[in-house]
Amino acid sequence: MGNFKEDIARVEAFIFDIDGVFTDGTFIPLPDNDYLRAYNAKDAYAVSYALKQGYKIFVITGGRGKTLESRFRYLNVTECHLHVSDKIAVLQEIFTRHRLDPANVIFMGDDLPDVECMRAVGIPVCPADAASEAIEAARYVSEFGGGKGCVRDIIEQTLRAQGKWGLSLKGIHDGGITTN
Amino acid sequence: MGNFKEDIARVEAFIFDIDGVFTDGTFIPLPDNDYLRAYNAKDAYAVSYALKQGYKIFVITGGRGKTLESRFRYLNVTECHLHVSDKIAVLQEIFTRHRLDPANVIFMGDDLPDVECMRAVGIPVCPADAASEAIEAARYVSEFGGGKGCVRDIIEQTLRAQGKWGLSLKGIHDGGITTN
Amino acid sequence: MGNFKEDIARVEAFIFDIDGVFTDGTFIPLPDNDYLRAYNAKDAYAVSYALKQGYKIFVITGGRGKTLESRFRYLNVTECHLHVSDKIAVLQEIFTRHRLDPANVIFMGDDLPDVECMRAVGIPVCPADAASEAIEAARYVSEFGGGKGCVRDIIEQTLRAQGKWGLSLKGIHDGGITTN
Amino acid sequence: MGNFKEDIARVEAFIFDIDGVFTDGTFIPLPDNDYLRAYNAKDAYAVSYALKQGYKIFVITGGRGKTLESRFRYLNVTECHLHVSDKIAVLQEIFTRHRLDPANVIFMGDDLPDVECMRAVGIPVCPADAASEAIEAARYVSEFGGGKGCVRDIIEQTLRAQGKWGLSLKGIHDGGITTN
Repeated sequence: MGNFKEDIARVEAFIFDIDGVFTDGTFIPLPDNDYLRAYNAKDAYAVSYALKQGYKIFVITGGRGKTLESRFRYLNVTECHLHVSDKIAVLQEIFTRHRLDPANVIFMGDDLPDVECMRAVGIPVCPADAASEAIEAARYVSEFGGGKGCVRDIIEQTLRAQGKWGLSLKGIHDGGITTN
Repeated sequence: MGNFKEDIARVEAFIFDIDGVFTDGTFIPLPDNDYLRAYNAKDAYAVSYALKQGYKIFVITGGRGKTLESRFRYLNVTECHLHVSDKIAVLQEIFTRHRLDPANVIFMGDDLPDVECMRAVGIPVCPADAASEAIEAARYVSEFGGGKGCVRDIIEQTLRAQGKWGLSLKGIHDGGITTN
Repeated sequence: MGNFKEDIARVEAFIFDIDGVFTDGTFIPLPDNDYLRAYNAKDAYAVSYALKQGYKIFVITGGRGKTLESRFRYLNVTECHLHVSDKIAVLQEIFTRHRLDPANVIFMGDDLPDVECMRAVGIPVCPADAASEAIEAARYVSEFGGGKGCVRDIIEQTLRAQGKWGLSLKGIHDGGITTN
Repeated sequence: MGNFKEDIARVEAFIFDIDGVFTDGTFIPLPDNDYLRAYNAKDAYAVSYALKQGYKIFVITGGRGKTLESRFRYLNVTECHLHVSDKIAVLQEIFTRHRLDPANVIFMGDDLPDVECMRAVGIPVCPADAASEAIEAARYVSEFGGGKGCVRDIIEQTLRAQGKWGLSLKGIHDGGITTN
């Protein structure tokens, strides 16, 4: 394990948990077993921005729901794994299928079910308000909480370290609500 | 009344109010007299975790609504009592039906209608932002507010005191959105 | 104008604005020109409690919407005036119709359109995060913001001053979501 | 570039981004690719107030959705440009079509896609929680965050500088939910 700034300069892929990372952990059940979640436009903009630059972005969550699925399909992430109870198995498959070197992968999680995955990558990170076990497993704790910009923070830092942040790219809609 | 840490080591059941405990007290009325509420994934994960370990978890609330009911049925708590105006009567029934020793029961409430129940158990607790009467009746005031992790806090502390916290259990979906 | 504590001991009626008082000022438009608003269970409990004790509670708002109307009808306040552009006229009517002495009335508002009404009652109050003009017009600024308990605060203080707060009344559902 | 207070005294038009400005950056996807957003009543009141006084107010956003569109049509802003990927082009058109002197225009944005527009007006401003690039481009950083009153703040300051703030205008509904 080397210097954090040097290590993120080699990153080619990001893997995120959803609840507590893309959101502040809050979810709103609907009557029909679907759920509403509130996302952050600055996070979403950073995801669209990084995808456009060629980075791979994966989502692995135990959460589920029609709205969750349509949201991340629309955001156009590389792969979106919902309703997962064994995250580490999915992670290993992703490594293989995409020939990723775990040393160059960032995993951001916030709670117990993420810890095993955090230990399996070179650059485990977490939001400011993560559970103590996730904070312990992290090399970097964002100053931003879940849903408050922690996703934007780690993407922005990584792209800055690689000289790829800061252009206002045409074709990425403001707020990252849409990509095209 | 003994030492708090020793007492929670004997706990076998948790009883929670909902509004102001599982939520920050906020509720969103819908046009048809149903309500939306925002829950916390870390709380929900802890509930699923404790249920899986064999603890009994009850909910007693004056609140009502189709969505509230389907949420807690889905979360699979031991018993869910909605639309209750006489909480202490329901509590006594629970003690009898489940042969619980009140001394080993945690009740977490946040407002006036909970105080009588808090006085009837060995371990009354409340969120950081509870009403003054609930704070007075509590043996432990969580550092977390309603909907901000107070449920997770008391479950986690109790299970830690019993050496049962900290394993990433397969089969509990991340974020506690689902249990199976 | 006398002592605040003495004056609230004579109060018999409360009049509230909604947006920024019962809510934190946030509203969520729906596609069909209705709106969602998030209310606070402790506020709602206090309203139900005071109504049950015989206090009169009025609502005057410029806001509108099917959901707003059904919410306050369900909460069973004395009168609910929605979509009002001339608040002072409505206030004067209420004074007359209910033979209220303005000196014994509390008005809680948070913004410019409330200031005229605040000046017309004996006890103008406002939330912590009110607009500067409302703060200037208020005799009492709650330590709680809109939607964060300012309604509860002023009702609780008033009923305490009259020796009517603190009983857990059966028949008021917890969280004030329902009254019956 | 002169004195800020002197410059806003000449302002005749406001241009706002939406996500992160009118909102705190949070958006809630619905199952059908529409989105819910939470707005602030004090912001909305200020917009209605300024429109009534004859100011021009424009909205330029990359965001989209049926609810977004109906919200701003209902708020009755001068022009509302949604789903924009090239903001500067839209801005230039607005300048031409409305014969605006860019020196007398306020643009409030919060993120990378707004920076080019901020540089094209005389009075670029941003919310307290804007991205670093927007803060750098701003002449004034509101003490209020997105969705927390930054829109109200800049409108109120401008109208005060022109002696046009502070009247409770009849016909503007409280909370700015409606205008008529």
